Amino acid sequence: MGSVSSEKTVTGYAAHDASGILTPFTYTLRQTGPEDVLIKVLYCGICHTDIHQTKNHLGMSKYPMVPGHEVVGEVVEVGSDVTRFHTGDTVGAGVIVGCCRTCEPCKANIEQYCSKRIWSYNDVYTDGKPTQGGFASAMVVDQKFVVKIPAGLAAEQVGPLLCAGLTVYSPLKHFGLMRSGLKGGILGLGGVGHMGVKIAKAMGHHVTVISSSDRKRTEAMEHLGADAYLVSSDEAAMGAAAEGLDYIIDTVPVFHPLEPYLPLLKVNGQIILMGVINQPMQFITPMIMLGRKSISGSFIGSMAETEEMLEFCEKKGLSSMIEIVKFDQINEAMERLERNDVRYRFVVDVAGSKQIA
Amino acid sequence: MGSVSSEKTVTGYAAHDASGILTPFTYTLRQTGPEDVLIKVLYCGICHTDIHQTKNHLGMSKYPMVPGHEVVGEVVEVGSDVTRFHTGDTVGAGVIVGCCRTCEPCKANIEQYCSKRIWSYNDVYTDGKPTQGGFASAMVVDQKFVVKIPAGLAAEQVGPLLCAGLTVYSPLKHFGLMRSGLKGGILGLGGVGHMGVKIAKAMGHHVTVISSSDRKRTEAMEHLGADAYLVSSDEAAMGAAAEGLDYIIDTVPVFHPLEPYLPLLKVNGQIILMGVINQPMQFITPMIMLGRKSISGSFIGSMAETEEMLEFCEKKGLSSMIEIVKFDQINEAMERLERNDVRYRFVVDVAGSKQIA
Repeated sequence: MGSVSSEKTVTGYAAHDASGILTPFTYTLRQTGPEDVLIKVLYCGICHTDIHQTKNHLGMSKYPMVPGHEVVGEVVEVGSDVTRFHTGDTVGAGVIVGCCRTCEPCKANIEQYCSKRIWSYNDVYTDGKPTQGGFASAMVVDQKFVVKIPAGLAAEQVGPLLCAGLTVYSPLKHFGLMRSGLKGGILGLGGVGHMGVKIAKAMGHHVTVISSSDRKRTEAMEHLGADAYLVSSDEAAMGAAAEGLDYIIDTVPVFHPLEPYLPLLKVNGQIILMGVINQPMQFITPMIMLGRKSISGSFIGSMAETEEMLEFCEKKGLSSMIEIVKFDQINEAMERLERNDVRYRFVVDVAGSKQIA
Repeated sequence: MGSVSSEKTVTGYAAHDASGILTPFTYTLRQTGPEDVLIKVLYCGICHTDIHQTKNHLGMSKYPMVPGHEVVGEVVEVGSDVTRFHTGDTVGAGVIVGCCRTCEPCKANIEQYCSKRIWSYNDVYTDGKPTQGGFASAMVVDQKFVVKIPAGLAAEQVGPLLCAGLTVYSPLKHFGLMRSGLKGGILGLGGVGHMGVKIAKAMGHHVTVISSSDRKRTEAMEHLGADAYLVSSDEAAMGAAAEGLDYIIDTVPVFHPLEPYLPLLKVNGQIILMGVINQPMQFITPMIMLGRKSISGSFIGSMAETEEMLEFCEKKGLSSMIEIVKFDQINEAMERLERNDVRYRFVVDVAGSKQIA
């Protein structure tokens, strides 16, 4: 992998235009600076955001783009000021790799809300070069944004915790929803939703999965351990469930009306949105006013919460449910993810893929 | 006024159809039951909701309807089980006059969120008869929904505190926004908005009034004591004010886009909606997700909060700014309120009006 303070040539899988098709791409990583950790990527989860970015759904994509922000790897080199990590450690990296360190959110250790945060890919690093993600043989990441993987967690299953798991854990903690006995709803059963069921169950909640069809009832109840299942088009069932939930985690990443779900919340209940949706969401004010309900949003979580969440998962024996693919299946996996045909997260076996060096 | 346990004939001002025009109307009050307080109305504020109801904007109006839910009066008779009030006390009554007393909100003393709450007017009481409001010579109100007016508050100014003041006080308390040093925005400077400025200032907040025009700048800054004034169409000023507010109290009772205001909130900031608006409000999810912002709503406040708010106002020397009218001006006042031509709340001098007995 080269010695300290030299650039490394790596191969990743990059999108080159809005088709989003990923093909091998060779580029250089910056030299491992004093605060940096060079990570040999072992596994990388595929998040729905990777589709948004590679296909330029948000209109901000720059190519070539190596996606991937659910990275698990092995430390192969550390900078001179790095004391928390050592060669051979299993570590993770997530959605963010930089922040300003001086703004209010940074000082409050919620650096994910720093307006100068640097994304793991499709962004520009402090050296002026593009950031590239985890669909690659290696990454260089500032130690602040690296997290140690607890020994009790399987490396291949950790990736999805770093984005999907954290995305659920952080708002439940922030909004005071970790105490046992609460009744929660999980709207949408994809990568984030399945982690939502598992994490909420591990917190001792009664969990209702809310879905547009009956298709996932058995898997939600039997495989994931949900307590109830609601089909949103079933008016009688939705009516019977009215005012029953303390919160709804809304993981649906495409436009959907909020009106059917707000009545499910108890007084003081909240719906927490996690999908980036650029089409306006709608609601009428009496639906929230007359129950002091809240519509809020949350974005991943902090590095401190990442560590805490991983410890929580280790303690509770909780992990993601994944389907492992190699790079020769990556485009097929992206297509299947786009039509929600995965139980529940794809993880690329990066180190085990032949196409990469 | 008659003796205990007989019905009383009273005169009020009632709307008889969706024109909303108020004319004298004679009806009977129920006999003063064991838990009831018979109140001779002295003053009654005019709230924007009175227009919605008298003109059937919400499609649920029943006529004849005597509006008015910011009632201040004198106790003239109490039921046998009433110990907290005595003849001659100055008391208030507000938006709600009944609740189920057994549901979760009732048990939690937030009876305003009881789904079986009974409105002061345009509702049906437990005896099956229509409720009628404070634009009348007298009301009979269950003691649970009567509040004593502290001696330090002027009777004519208290009415607007019972709805407009409470509407602002309750969410600031509930959402943890009472501590000094916060930066708040008040969107819309009508009856609720002017109380918002005064109450937020009394809590020690830096208060920015946000308005669609520059028209109210002087009064906001000089008469009400606001610290800053923002015109929402001034893009430069709005940009400069971005991420500066801990909360926005949104008092606008008609449709308006939320997009210009969400960026004014800091990370973790919240916008609290107080206007009943049946046209869908809109927002895009990244605007709330990327700052963990919340859109919430709140509805008046509890009776316990009403007492607390009145004590707060007495302690802080805080009252409403009003224009007093008599019943011969009531229809003109309703018209002027509808075009927001009042500084800042009309109060009807009920007892001083000749047209009523």
